[in-house]
Amino acid sequence: MRRALALAALGEGRTSPNPLVGAVVLDAAGQLVGEGFHARAGEPHAEVGALAQAGDQARSGTLIVTLEPCCHHGRTPPCCEAVIAAGISRVVVAMADPDPRVAGGGIARLRAAGLEVIEAVAEAQALRLNRAFVHRVRTGRPLGILKWAMSLDGRTALPNGQSQWISGPDARAWVHQLRAGCDAVIVGGGTVRADDPLLTSRGLRAPEPLRVVLSRNLDLPEAAQLWDQAVAPTLVAHGPMDPPAQQEGEARAMATCALLDRLGVERLELAACEPAPLLEALAARGCNRVLWECGPELAASALRQGCVQELAVVIAPRLLGGLAARTALGDLGLEGLDQVQSWRALERRDLGSDLLWELESPKPPADHAGLNTVVKGIARPGSTP
Amino acid sequence: MRRALALAALGEGRTSPNPLVGAVVLDAAGQLVGEGFHARAGEPHAEVGALAQAGDQARSGTLIVTLEPCCHHGRTPPCCEAVIAAGISRVVVAMADPDPRVAGGGIARLRAAGLEVIEAVAEAQALRLNRAFVHRVRTGRPLGILKWAMSLDGRTALPNGQSQWISGPDARAWVHQLRAGCDAVIVGGGTVRADDPLLTSRGLRAPEPLRVVLSRNLDLPEAAQLWDQAVAPTLVAHGPMDPPAQQEGEARAMATCALLDRLGVERLELAACEPAPLLEALAARGCNRVLWECGPELAASALRQGCVQELAVVIAPRLLGGLAARTALGDLGLEGLDQVQSWRALERRDLGSDLLWELESPKPPADHAGLNTVVKGIARPGSTP
Repeated sequence: MRRALALAALGEGRTSPNPLVGAVVLDAAGQLVGEGFHARAGEPHAEVGALAQAGDQARSGTLIVTLEPCCHHGRTPPCCEAVIAAGISRVVVAMADPDPRVAGGGIARLRAAGLEVIEAVAEAQALRLNRAFVHRVRTGRPLGILKWAMSLDGRTALPNGQSQWISGPDARAWVHQLRAGCDAVIVGGGTVRADDPLLTSRGLRAPEPLRVVLSRNLDLPEAAQLWDQAVAPTLVAHGPMDPPAQQEGEARAMATCALLDRLGVERLELAACEPAPLLEALAARGCNRVLWECGPELAASALRQGCVQELAVVIAPRLLGGLAARTALGDLGLEGLDQVQSWRALERRDLGSDLLWELESPKPPADHAGLNTVVKGIARPGSTP
Repeated sequence: MRRALALAALGEGRTSPNPLVGAVVLDAAGQLVGEGFHARAGEPHAEVGALAQAGDQARSGTLIVTLEPCCHHGRTPPCCEAVIAAGISRVVVAMADPDPRVAGGGIARLRAAGLEVIEAVAEAQALRLNRAFVHRVRTGRPLGILKWAMSLDGRTALPNGQSQWISGPDARAWVHQLRAGCDAVIVGGGTVRADDPLLTSRGLRAPEPLRVVLSRNLDLPEAAQLWDQAVAPTLVAHGPMDPPAQQEGEARAMATCALLDRLGVERLELAACEPAPLLEALAARGCNRVLWECGPELAASALRQGCVQELAVVIAPRLLGGLAARTALGDLGLEGLDQVQSWRALERRDLGSDLLWELESPKPPADHAGLNTVVKGIARPGSTP
């Protein structure tokens, strides 16, 4: 299963809306005869690749797979049928598929066909690997990561606004890797105006993640790196255009729309210009994981609307000071320190002389119980929870 | 020498204005026959204790000592003479004594008496252990540590001012240890008014470090934990009382003076109400190491005046947010990020779920060259620098 999980991870950042899946086939004598992983949505599932590699040697063998095989016709035929047809006699599964079209149905199908199924092997690692997929299926929104770089005194810019670069070259290279693992990167209009960012993975991911601007008033610059659609796709999301805003703002918004249309930049009108409806729209487009690289106000809104499940904070060992200096987060509406929960540490490591601290939310998603029900509903009778 | 350094560290926080010193005596056969460390100013030096323990067995033996033995009459007689009188034939020294009354004179005296002297063994560790003493001798000011606790988004309080407690119980216990290693703890008047802190080591250090308030206008509360002199001594430092300030402020300052005098709280009038003259006054009182536990404006002043050599930052994995929230540092007068140097990481460790990051200044003290001269001036001919 360790090998299958390592294979699954090879698809990182490229399988959305699908999960990461790895599979290993052992022959009847326990020798490894096939390996596969899901490389990209629309391409063969991991099991199919591993079984094809194994060929006849799969007969009476064991399939070890990180996710319950599917039992429905999607872009590819159901894997359960391929497993049965290959003559596999035992299947070892790390986690159930939370997709309501599967949700234990794959395991039931295999058992009905007489195969032995062993579940929940290295389940915690598998859930961790696919946490973005699980979160999207469970909540209807992609998993959100909020990233910022700050000085040791918590500043994201000098009092005069200068912010490039607080962190060092290792941290900047790491950001490209982080983006490569995400399906979309989100900023607000203020970041476009102030920083004119490129927001790509610098080629580490192909295609590049979708670059998203959430703009309240469409007050966006005429020239911006984000408008170059030859580099990577960009989506500008905004609130309802009707009723029109005040006269001056409306004229500017209309001009921006015309500009974006001319440049081939996609626009998306949301029911409200807020993080939550944006994420729902991105989930519908197949995003499992998004990265918030925005300014303090949008970051605070995303946090308040439950659109951030993980933090990635780079702390540079430098002091910026300044009463007027910019910080990472706007108002969170907190009244007392007893309301403030601690985030759970995931990883901490050095990026050159900077420190990266990754954490996850102390709050479970609203329907966390739902997944537990799915997972428990298909647990083997008598298995340890 | 490892043993001698460990012995020296036992005096931590209690030897000021003296350095930490540890000593080990081996007999002629190389067996350990005596140990000692300097426990407190005015008490015997480490060498004397170790030689007393060794007695006659010191004859033709080796003295291993972390600091060059003294050659001057201070509160105790010169150690060099005791070493010579004990019949020691070889002395191993970690570092030269930067005190201008010694500065190589001790080593020269031993050599003149025919003893073999081996220098600079584990010198870096010895310099590190006594960095506060070395800094005070070199610059005329105690080494300054600036400490703060902040949220992951760099806040030291909620927008409504609430600040207790951002960090957890482990971090608060660590602060008591940190204070126990310091000779004085400094705050400004604002911290006294806002937090009414106790500022003791909770008995970890006896006597408690001197509690110092640097107050510009002597606008201090009538009741404060710092005024209880039965718990620990307090010093209120302020600028010149003459010429008097504006009418109202003057009346308040006079009232505060009367209050402090009545309560037996010491007052100190500085030539200017600034960090640098305060530290010079504290050095004159024998402080080797002071802790800044002050608000953002005084912290920024201390940094700008070169009164901070080390940072101890506790980062809690919590988000406070808020445009008006308090941060650790006021204005540092920086205009460009190219002016901002990186601090050097010393140690990073967990304090419960909080993170402690200790760093040291990238700037050498003004007369750094001075010490190098002393150290180099007594290096053995042919020794590796």
